[in-house]
Amino acid sequence: MTLIKMLTNQDEFVGFYLLKELELKQTNGSPPKDYFDIVLCDASGQMSAKYWDVSPTDKETFFPMGLVKVRGLVHTYREKLQIKINRIRKATPEDGVSLTDFIRSAPIRPVDLIFTIKQVMDSIEDQDIRKIVAFCVTKVEEKLMHYPAAKTHHHAYYAGLAYHIVRMLEIGEFICKQRPFLNADLIKAGIILHDIAKPEEMIAQLGIVSDYSVKGKLLGHISLASNWITEAALSYGMDLDSDRVIGLQHLVLSHHNLGEWGSPVQPQTAEAVALHHIDSLDAKLQMVEDALDTTPETEPWTPLIRGLENKPIYRTKL
Amino acid sequence: MTLIKMLTNQDEFVGFYLLKELELKQTNGSPPKDYFDIVLCDASGQMSAKYWDVSPTDKETFFPMGLVKVRGLVHTYREKLQIKINRIRKATPEDGVSLTDFIRSAPIRPVDLIFTIKQVMDSIEDQDIRKIVAFCVTKVEEKLMHYPAAKTHHHAYYAGLAYHIVRMLEIGEFICKQRPFLNADLIKAGIILHDIAKPEEMIAQLGIVSDYSVKGKLLGHISLASNWITEAALSYGMDLDSDRVIGLQHLVLSHHNLGEWGSPVQPQTAEAVALHHIDSLDAKLQMVEDALDTTPETEPWTPLIRGLENKPIYRTKL
Amino acid sequence: MTLIKMLTNQDEFVGFYLLKELELKQTNGSPPKDYFDIVLCDASGQMSAKYWDVSPTDKETFFPMGLVKVRGLVHTYREKLQIKINRIRKATPEDGVSLTDFIRSAPIRPVDLIFTIKQVMDSIEDQDIRKIVAFCVTKVEEKLMHYPAAKTHHHAYYAGLAYHIVRMLEIGEFICKQRPFLNADLIKAGIILHDIAKPEEMIAQLGIVSDYSVKGKLLGHISLASNWITEAALSYGMDLDSDRVIGLQHLVLSHHNLGEWGSPVQPQTAEAVALHHIDSLDAKLQMVEDALDTTPETEPWTPLIRGLENKPIYRTKL
Amino acid sequence: MTLIKMLTNQDEFVGFYLLKELELKQTNGSPPKDYFDIVLCDASGQMSAKYWDVSPTDKETFFPMGLVKVRGLVHTYREKLQIKINRIRKATPEDGVSLTDFIRSAPIRPVDLIFTIKQVMDSIEDQDIRKIVAFCVTKVEEKLMHYPAAKTHHHAYYAGLAYHIVRMLEIGEFICKQRPFLNADLIKAGIILHDIAKPEEMIAQLGIVSDYSVKGKLLGHISLASNWITEAALSYGMDLDSDRVIGLQHLVLSHHNLGEWGSPVQPQTAEAVALHHIDSLDAKLQMVEDALDTTPETEPWTPLIRGLENKPIYRTKL
Amino acid sequence: MTLIKMLTNQDEFVGFYLLKELELKQTNGSPPKDYFDIVLCDASGQMSAKYWDVSPTDKETFFPMGLVKVRGLVHTYREKLQIKINRIRKATPEDGVSLTDFIRSAPIRPVDLIFTIKQVMDSIEDQDIRKIVAFCVTKVEEKLMHYPAAKTHHHAYYAGLAYHIVRMLEIGEFICKQRPFLNADLIKAGIILHDIAKPEEMIAQLGIVSDYSVKGKLLGHISLASNWITEAALSYGMDLDSDRVIGLQHLVLSHHNLGEWGSPVQPQTAEAVALHHIDSLDAKLQMVEDALDTTPETEPWTPLIRGLENKPIYRTKL
Amino acid sequence: MTLIKMLTNQDEFVGFYLLKELELKQTNGSPPKDYFDIVLCDASGQMSAKYWDVSPTDKETFFPMGLVKVRGLVHTYREKLQIKINRIRKATPEDGVSLTDFIRSAPIRPVDLIFTIKQVMDSIEDQDIRKIVAFCVTKVEEKLMHYPAAKTHHHAYYAGLAYHIVRMLEIGEFICKQRPFLNADLIKAGIILHDIAKPEEMIAQLGIVSDYSVKGKLLGHISLASNWITEAALSYGMDLDSDRVIGLQHLVLSHHNLGEWGSPVQPQTAEAVALHHIDSLDAKLQMVEDALDTTPETEPWTPLIRGLENKPIYRTKL
Repeated sequence: MTLIKMLTNQDEFVGFYLLKELELKQTNGSPPKDYFDIVLCDASGQMSAKYWDVSPTDKETFFPMGLVKVRGLVHTYREKLQIKINRIRKATPEDGVSLTDFIRSAPIRPVDLIFTIKQVMDSIEDQDIRKIVAFCVTKVEEKLMHYPAAKTHHHAYYAGLAYHIVRMLEIGEFICKQRPFLNADLIKAGIILHDIAKPEEMIAQLGIVSDYSVKGKLLGHISLASNWITEAALSYGMDLDSDRVIGLQHLVLSHHNLGEWGSPVQPQTAEAVALHHIDSLDAKLQMVEDALDTTPETEPWTPLIRGLENKPIYRTKL
Repeated sequence: MTLIKMLTNQDEFVGFYLLKELELKQTNGSPPKDYFDIVLCDASGQMSAKYWDVSPTDKETFFPMGLVKVRGLVHTYREKLQIKINRIRKATPEDGVSLTDFIRSAPIRPVDLIFTIKQVMDSIEDQDIRKIVAFCVTKVEEKLMHYPAAKTHHHAYYAGLAYHIVRMLEIGEFICKQRPFLNADLIKAGIILHDIAKPEEMIAQLGIVSDYSVKGKLLGHISLASNWITEAALSYGMDLDSDRVIGLQHLVLSHHNLGEWGSPVQPQTAEAVALHHIDSLDAKLQMVEDALDTTPETEPWTPLIRGLENKPIYRTKL
Repeated sequence: MTLIKMLTNQDEFVGFYLLKELELKQTNGSPPKDYFDIVLCDASGQMSAKYWDVSPTDKETFFPMGLVKVRGLVHTYREKLQIKINRIRKATPEDGVSLTDFIRSAPIRPVDLIFTIKQVMDSIEDQDIRKIVAFCVTKVEEKLMHYPAAKTHHHAYYAGLAYHIVRMLEIGEFICKQRPFLNADLIKAGIILHDIAKPEEMIAQLGIVSDYSVKGKLLGHISLASNWITEAALSYGMDLDSDRVIGLQHLVLSHHNLGEWGSPVQPQTAEAVALHHIDSLDAKLQMVEDALDTTPETEPWTPLIRGLENKPIYRTKL
Repeated sequence: MTLIKMLTNQDEFVGFYLLKELELKQTNGSPPKDYFDIVLCDASGQMSAKYWDVSPTDKETFFPMGLVKVRGLVHTYREKLQIKINRIRKATPEDGVSLTDFIRSAPIRPVDLIFTIKQVMDSIEDQDIRKIVAFCVTKVEEKLMHYPAAKTHHHAYYAGLAYHIVRMLEIGEFICKQRPFLNADLIKAGIILHDIAKPEEMIAQLGIVSDYSVKGKLLGHISLASNWITEAALSYGMDLDSDRVIGLQHLVLSHHNLGEWGSPVQPQTAEAVALHHIDSLDAKLQMVEDALDTTPETEPWTPLIRGLENKPIYRTKL
Repeated sequence: MTLIKMLTNQDEFVGFYLLKELELKQTNGSPPKDYFDIVLCDASGQMSAKYWDVSPTDKETFFPMGLVKVRGLVHTYREKLQIKINRIRKATPEDGVSLTDFIRSAPIRPVDLIFTIKQVMDSIEDQDIRKIVAFCVTKVEEKLMHYPAAKTHHHAYYAGLAYHIVRMLEIGEFICKQRPFLNADLIKAGIILHDIAKPEEMIAQLGIVSDYSVKGKLLGHISLASNWITEAALSYGMDLDSDRVIGLQHLVLSHHNLGEWGSPVQPQTAEAVALHHIDSLDAKLQMVEDALDTTPETEPWTPLIRGLENKPIYRTKL
Repeated sequence: MTLIKMLTNQDEFVGFYLLKELELKQTNGSPPKDYFDIVLCDASGQMSAKYWDVSPTDKETFFPMGLVKVRGLVHTYREKLQIKINRIRKATPEDGVSLTDFIRSAPIRPVDLIFTIKQVMDSIEDQDIRKIVAFCVTKVEEKLMHYPAAKTHHHAYYAGLAYHIVRMLEIGEFICKQRPFLNADLIKAGIILHDIAKPEEMIAQLGIVSDYSVKGKLLGHISLASNWITEAALSYGMDLDSDRVIGLQHLVLSHHNLGEWGSPVQPQTAEAVALHHIDSLDAKLQMVEDALDTTPETEPWTPLIRGLENKPIYRTKL
């Protein structure tokens, strides 16, 4: 079975893949014929595909997010690789393949990621801060097991959000040791909370975002998380005007740094400055790592990366 | 008694004024002498002033926000008019002058402004929206009687915020009549709520803002008002995910239109688009009107106005 | 007969439509076959269409801006709806359909719009201003009966420009009542003149702009209108340096507010500030209203709207 | 007599200078004393000065734009050189000094500059273009003898505007020879007309701009010149829609290249592209030359130059 | 034989052309058929083409950068002209056509361009500057015979870079005569060196850039040239800190004027300011001239030009 | 002895301080009197001061960068604290105070910082990279003992540059452990080299930058360091086109991330992306820490910080 990342022009191949997207379309011919416009993926990447001879039965058989066995031929179309599917059938239990093997996911098991996040959460010394963090985590705990951190920007895969949080917690722990003037409780809380409302902002399945929710578009995850902190504080009878509550809301509201990037206020506490830069460091390096991982090793350059000034990354040979 | 707006170079005058700012300083001479660096104001405007011969008693006598009787001489200093105070004494009850006569204030009585706002609020047909608006208005009702709408930008005077709201409500009413596809309840609510947290963002007395509060700087009035709507909805047991609650929060969050102007989301409902433009229309025209009012009629141009691309306004003669 | 706005995927339908665009193309096959690449429209919207079996007679029969009867099938192509035309014939007098029924147009009759504009024009008290406005209106009077206000941006339909002017005049009248310090003559004149040269800037038929004129591109409607005011003033022997003439030219030149939006000077009279904001309020709200109108009611979101920061509008449900 | 450019800290000197600015002020002392806040200039540069012991007679004697003989001492104040005037008297006819010797001016006599401009104008082959240019030149001919090209930006001295035009004409002639596809008539006309309305935009005396005119602020020199072309064309009965008239107006309107620099349209003819870059080349190099000229030769760096990205220029030593 | 620039819709033609690009693709049909996606060019321009019936022999016969004889038909595809190739064969020696006749190239012979550049180089009086320039020219001398100045931006043809340098040298010579305060040696050196590393930044053949080199992307031609000057100075034992060496590096580093255009420092010597503007003037006017040349004379407007604010150029008719 | 950071209004104090700046000026009085305009500093901060009665001896006695004993009084001038010096004398050896006690400096001894940097340098496994780094470090080794990292932006104190490098090396080490796909040699080299030319860009004494050097202004530290790498590679006979040399130059050239921040190319290797973000994280957090350290603990807000979007930092109280 060939990984999608390994396919090159004129390859003939057979293998199991996930039908990430599938749409029934019609050719321009007369009479028009039905065909499937498909995106096949596995854990190594994804590729467009066409299946030209769709039978009435096929229309009842194939749906997005199903596993299929495909025999196909790779060719180039508009300077990109594309698959022409010659044969296709649904995977059966006998095939012994499972959905989660075919999607990109964080390199650490979700259950371990959540465990780490909770462990850090429990290590927060300030009781009020710990309660507020726990309140917000509880709201999305189930989704945190599988949600990506973004649609395409970075950590766009299964459990990507939890992975992003855990890696930031590692950096945060180091920076707090290096610079004891930072309040470790606020750093921990800020990291866990900064994107905590993303699972309510986006609609995702198997780590793949299909759309943004209405409240995601009208309020955004930053204001949503700020509202949740209000809700948490009210439910525990905390003073909404305390430095604790305001400090947490400030961390969340300011973590995009600039107004044009979505933050209504700019970082104005030491921890808010740290949070923004830890977030940035982790997100950008992950973009680089993921781009290198999903680019064939023979290619010296990755594709352009939107989040990195739309530049590609060069694979230095030393 | 001469209005400050009327004073010109070399004028000698006597009159009652408000000590808007007063600071004790020392000359560079040897020995240094105490003097007062003062800002005098009345309802027509304000001017810098110096009082050079400060006695020990004076230091115990004069404080900011007190009324004084002044004999002075106007001269120019660094191309601006300045007052040299020759004599100064505190105003006494016998003088029959009252603080509120000496500050700029909205042309309508605060009590009438509040009455109008409440009347419009009570006319909101949707019960949930009405309750949320009332909840937020109650939080700042007392301050709404006198708070300005901004430090210097626009409506920067006694009851300026309430006046801004009332004028916007008038425009909003007209626009809803002209364009029935707009939801009048949301327009009314949006106008009343859009700046409702400003009294918590700024610290003001007699319509004069001295500073921003900690939560004003760390959260900003936009996120504060969004939190209040959460609080209101929770206290009435409303669904935080309803179009009502989200719609109101969206109105508040988006009313600055762009990220670089402080809005974390851009207007995405008809009423949010309307709210931003009604706000803009009222604020800009008030800046113009106020600048013309506080510029001597003999001057063809007002000073530069920051909120109007830093341009002055010309007094067209027809 | 089905309105285009109502068509959904897989619909089969018969109806009369306007051939808004029609181009003869050839398929890639060997031998290549002729086909028509078409845009069909009616008053409710427009949709792409293909007619695959073009006969030599067809080539002599069908031309843009003609009415046709079509039998077709809706399918999706590149995520957009498209029509496959199965049969097509020209509409005949017997069909009893008329061109203007098939184009989007202002909701008020052109003749009534022009009547209103002239009525307001005649109410201008200053004789010179009235004469200049009349001079400019006369230049484009005929085109004002049907020209849109823009190619796609806003009021992009039959008599859209006149409709834009009339609605702005309504707002202007209200604002002048609310703020008597504004000069009503200048507001009226500014509103009527601000886009008055648009019919010379664009080439349009039936409310549809096909291109910009050479002088539209090289001078722009703003400078054109300024030139017309010069021409009017000269023809009546008025002083080009009077506050009247300069004031009117300033209104026109500054109404886009910023240099990057096409205004060589920024608003510096009270009326110029008002004009810009009235223009903005009307144009933006009309974009919203038109987007909601041409989006099927079942869709919660309109398409992205370029003039609104490229955001879609959400149909709040209350 | 010492040139101002040569004065250094602690210099004592005697010489004739022009009172470029003079304002009567009062010290903070008690009683306050009158003093003059002065700017002295000669052809080499200018410097601030104070005269501390102003007598009542002095107030009647000294006015801006008069020539004086001064005995003074140079010291530094806030990191800039300043003159303390010890003695001052008005220049008399016997002194044999004349105003124009004390101002910066173009290195070519105004009469010669005008002669060159007219000569080029007369060499324009297209009769209509020549007439329009002549019409506009006539409007400002007298002022062209002495107006600067800008308040401070570039060529800010006596006859600076005419000098700017003449130098651009030299470059234009060379470029037209190098690139015969350019229309030499349009290049000549564009260069002469591009800033032709500046004398109406600014109020200047002896090459020193004191302010902008009302029409300068409300219309700007670009739109003013465009209006003049309309006026010229109308007065000669030319077709306003001809490529000639539109082409000339386009040259003027687009010569600032971008909207944010004041051009309502961008260059869209070959000659308009050329005009913008010739203007830019001449203006920037003149800024450099003038900055080097007015900086003492011992200084390796000029002051910061606003028009050159606010950078200073280094005097390379080779 | 028809020039590509002359081809219009529905033309049938026979002629020799260069296969600028050629890619083997497959149709969507079943079974899919091979076809060539081609770009044909000659010295007058280029056009897309399809060849639908590709035989196995054809695949071995046709490659990019080969000359072919083509019989074809012009049609429109997606609003652009495209060629359907009916017959195609390789050019043979008997055809008497030569590669360089089919590519766009500078209007002056490369050998003459290089001669001129060297002549100017030899006229540099300062020995060190002359040596450094010669060192750098030697590095790319061979490529200078045919390299373009950019991929598409300007002078994008055979020997375009040398042509750009020569034309700039002409302008530079004129400007140095007009303004003797400029150092002619530095102007000459700056012009020759400013883009001297472009042949190492880009990979080009026959004046056509196919890609950027790794060092082109990672360092850019500006830093590369700066490194070369270091290398030259070291190899001749010159002082790296002399005004000479720093001055030359400054010319190269600053010639894009702004950071966002790629210059790490802004022009801060007279010659650096001149260099940027001479570069700009030549590049922009060449874009205009080339756009007009490659647009059919019947077209009043050229296509949009990216380097000219994405505007088209109008062919003024006088 | 009172630390400058502790001084408040009306304090009388005696202590030793460093004369960071001293300028002889004259009062406006008649006759004018000499006075010293002074900046006093110690390791805790700095403050303006005036000494009004300067004797001729004083002029020969006091110079910048000398230690003095001062008796003074703190007052406010233009809303800032200022010292009026009543007595001043030079420090003598008997006073037992030493210059370095009075300047802000890194919290780690320079010798230890250099030791760490060299240790890391020696741990670079790639021999060529190690040699290049060593070559560049040697160039500035002495200055690295005391140079600040910037004039005012961040780490603006004694040995600030070495401290910045060491802290970045700590972060870099952690990040390389966390993300093994990064090349540790390049990260180490990039951190040591990124600002290595700053000591040649700026002129500093005791950690205080007085100016930029000519080559600092004309080339900038980024291009200077790139040149040094060329020089190092040439001196060791390395291939200038190897991924090693290009990779190191890319790290230095791209570390400011954007053109408008001074980088001629954007980061396009994994290590370059990491370097920029590590630099940013360290610099911003140090700005925060230093601002909090030099602000009296009683102040809840630091002054505005230019490098942090010109925002102040709030001292959260938990």
